[in-house]
Amino acid sequence: MSPDAVLDRIDADLPQAIGRLTALLAIPSISTDPAFSDDCVRAAEWLVEDLRSMGFQASARPTPGHPVVLARGGEGPGRHVLFYGHYDVQPVDPLALWHRDPFDPAIEETAKGPVIRARGASDDKGQLMTFLEACRAWKAVHGALPGRITIFLEGEEESGSPSLVPFMRQNAKELAADLALICDTGMYDDRTPAIVTQLRGLAKAEFTIHGPSRDLHSGSYGGIAINPLRVMARVLAGLHDDQGRVTLPGFYDGVEDLPDSLRAQWQGLGFDHAAYLGEVGLSVPAGEVDRTPLEMIWSRPTAEINGMWGGYTGAGFKTVLPSEAHAKVSFRLVSGQDPDAILRSLQDYVAAALPADCRVTFDQLLGSRASRMEVSDPAFEAARQALTEEWGRAAAFVGEGGSIPVAGHFKTILGLDAMLVGFGRDDDNIHSPNEKYDVESFHKGIRSWARILARLA
Amino acid sequence: MSPDAVLDRIDADLPQAIGRLTALLAIPSISTDPAFSDDCVRAAEWLVEDLRSMGFQASARPTPGHPVVLARGGEGPGRHVLFYGHYDVQPVDPLALWHRDPFDPAIEETAKGPVIRARGASDDKGQLMTFLEACRAWKAVHGALPGRITIFLEGEEESGSPSLVPFMRQNAKELAADLALICDTGMYDDRTPAIVTQLRGLAKAEFTIHGPSRDLHSGSYGGIAINPLRVMARVLAGLHDDQGRVTLPGFYDGVEDLPDSLRAQWQGLGFDHAAYLGEVGLSVPAGEVDRTPLEMIWSRPTAEINGMWGGYTGAGFKTVLPSEAHAKVSFRLVSGQDPDAILRSLQDYVAAALPADCRVTFDQLLGSRASRMEVSDPAFEAARQALTEEWGRAAAFVGEGGSIPVAGHFKTILGLDAMLVGFGRDDDNIHSPNEKYDVESFHKGIRSWARILARLA
Repeated sequence: MSPDAVLDRIDADLPQAIGRLTALLAIPSISTDPAFSDDCVRAAEWLVEDLRSMGFQASARPTPGHPVVLARGGEGPGRHVLFYGHYDVQPVDPLALWHRDPFDPAIEETAKGPVIRARGASDDKGQLMTFLEACRAWKAVHGALPGRITIFLEGEEESGSPSLVPFMRQNAKELAADLALICDTGMYDDRTPAIVTQLRGLAKAEFTIHGPSRDLHSGSYGGIAINPLRVMARVLAGLHDDQGRVTLPGFYDGVEDLPDSLRAQWQGLGFDHAAYLGEVGLSVPAGEVDRTPLEMIWSRPTAEINGMWGGYTGAGFKTVLPSEAHAKVSFRLVSGQDPDAILRSLQDYVAAALPADCRVTFDQLLGSRASRMEVSDPAFEAARQALTEEWGRAAAFVGEGGSIPVAGHFKTILGLDAMLVGFGRDDDNIHSPNEKYDVESFHKGIRSWARILARLA
Repeated sequence: MSPDAVLDRIDADLPQAIGRLTALLAIPSISTDPAFSDDCVRAAEWLVEDLRSMGFQASARPTPGHPVVLARGGEGPGRHVLFYGHYDVQPVDPLALWHRDPFDPAIEETAKGPVIRARGASDDKGQLMTFLEACRAWKAVHGALPGRITIFLEGEEESGSPSLVPFMRQNAKELAADLALICDTGMYDDRTPAIVTQLRGLAKAEFTIHGPSRDLHSGSYGGIAINPLRVMARVLAGLHDDQGRVTLPGFYDGVEDLPDSLRAQWQGLGFDHAAYLGEVGLSVPAGEVDRTPLEMIWSRPTAEINGMWGGYTGAGFKTVLPSEAHAKVSFRLVSGQDPDAILRSLQDYVAAALPADCRVTFDQLLGSRASRMEVSDPAFEAARQALTEEWGRAAAFVGEGGSIPVAGHFKTILGLDAMLVGFGRDDDNIHSPNEKYDVESFHKGIRSWARILARLA
């Protein structure tokens, strides 16, 4: 079925589509912070209303955390697709670095063209709306949705998705489909669309090193009392060796080298690491010394300190030896690594590194495995052709450094393969101040989905 | 002159003296935080009024920071003393760990007797009021102050005393005296009074390690981008070697081993490090492996991390690689060490430890030398006898791990020797939540000063 009439409709309706996205972005649905729980509910309800308006049977389904939006619509002989996105967003701190209120969205002109500026514009509200707008345009033109579609939007992706797996298990029948579509990834570069075929997993932990029973004055206790900050610095510094390798015993168990064929294809991409790093003020790849930059990002596991804090951090000086030191660390995992084993290895490592009088407590231990897609599924080739038509450039099969645990859950719980297509860009500032989504990503993203759905239908 | 009548007066007036201290403690004169600037002025004005009420000519003298309280009174043939204390207090965070409002002082009964609970109770409002109350009682009994006395109270001690040296230089004539008395130190133990004869100096610095130009998402940049938190952890971990020694080049230049005579005297004190550490939940001395616990506290230089922070530190998780990492570090110095040279060595060390694409900025670089007192001055023996009489136990000449830079400034700027006598205790929680001052320290502290002033007059 030719999508031309639908594409015209999408072009004509773009201002209204931006208006709808703006309304959704204005809801501060930060899932990690309980202060925004009501806003998460509001975002879910907004989506339910929007899905109903285009003919879906939709509802906000309660979970122990934030609701899941579930919707079902359409008919037809083509494959039944399950579309996944998330309506929750990252926290906004440091707020002072934002040029405008993160929840007062606006179109801003930039050197690269107009962008939609707001928290969640790219991750993931703008992306999920590309799919919904494609459905809306299709319905407007053809009077029906483009085949059997289930929409599945969660509200806890940025907080570790604690309710996701139980919900999927409890509602597996309702979620049954032939193929999962996920829109939470990026382009290969500003002009080249991409389909993600391998994803890193994620393991994370927060821990606290406890020393003296109270904060001490360094005049009285400096030198004789153990300082948890000093212990924490040593523990964190010891996570990597001089070659940039992670030191945790067993960390690389199961990690395979890149197959020669994939290595050759990636080399063919001509990845410009100088430009990639230059974008954020850097110049030298800082990972394992014997790996290529693209391997570092797509196919090698990493350990990162995401936060550390302790002692006096306010203005001025306080010569304190604090009672506690804190850190949040995370590991990007690749195929073959066991997140649980790695988190156990971390716990053992920290415990073994503690001097007398110190103890450690762990919190927020969470892990998800990496995944690889079956690109032999004809849907991948269909999507590659659709994207290539829309963008005028051959779509790439790529790896993805970020972790999208839901892709693994679709496979293990629902038996579904997942196809990840998204239109984010490297400079979207996701998880950072001044997040944006290019209007071109939004517009051509909607058109891309219309073309993909036409081929799948 | 016998102090007996004055001592009786002090005993009778104790409830009123506690009331006055309570009024002063209720003023939140936190000097490091600009939000409390007005409160610092209020504390200074309260002291001026109080000093005038006992016959001093007193005024609050402006500085670029918080005012200095300067007062002059009394006559007589004895030595002219210059008394120093500070009316500013430490910040109160973490506020949640306080059992009561830090600025709502109260007498609390404890297993060791009644205490005055409030921020500043021991450091230094309670201590400075011991001297003022001794003067008040003397005036009430004899109609005059016990000799020539200048009172010099600063309001920036807890924030590095930026105005102190310029003020002393500009007002050197007005500050002229024969001997400085400083009340900002502690007892040797709960029963043994002490006169401090050597003080560690202090050098401190805050620094920031800068990496990427903005916060990054570890999914996109983890592995390839340098993480300033990882660099900071390595920098801080490298400040000490496996033996607990500070690694900065030149750090121990000029540091002398303890003279055998002093070592013997300190061994005679029978310091119970297990009890000292047990008080704060520790058991093992954590300093240089080849030093005694008392050396670690009194006579060895140290390096401490007082604060470190960066990345996401809120509730939940954010897989960010931050743009910056921060630390506050300080060094306790001993006689012979040059604070400026040590701060330069720190700067060189951090700069040399930085990988490509990182830079460091320093802030708050401040240093003061250690000092040793001339105990041959007969005032020391007079004070030792007075303290021994009051407490019924031989007063000790001790070292002090804390830094009281003003003692060095009195020597270099005013040519004054300083005698440090104070009544703080190890469990006073200075610089920590739930600071207190024992009512016994306050009461017998006032009586101690009356006895010392009687001998000096």
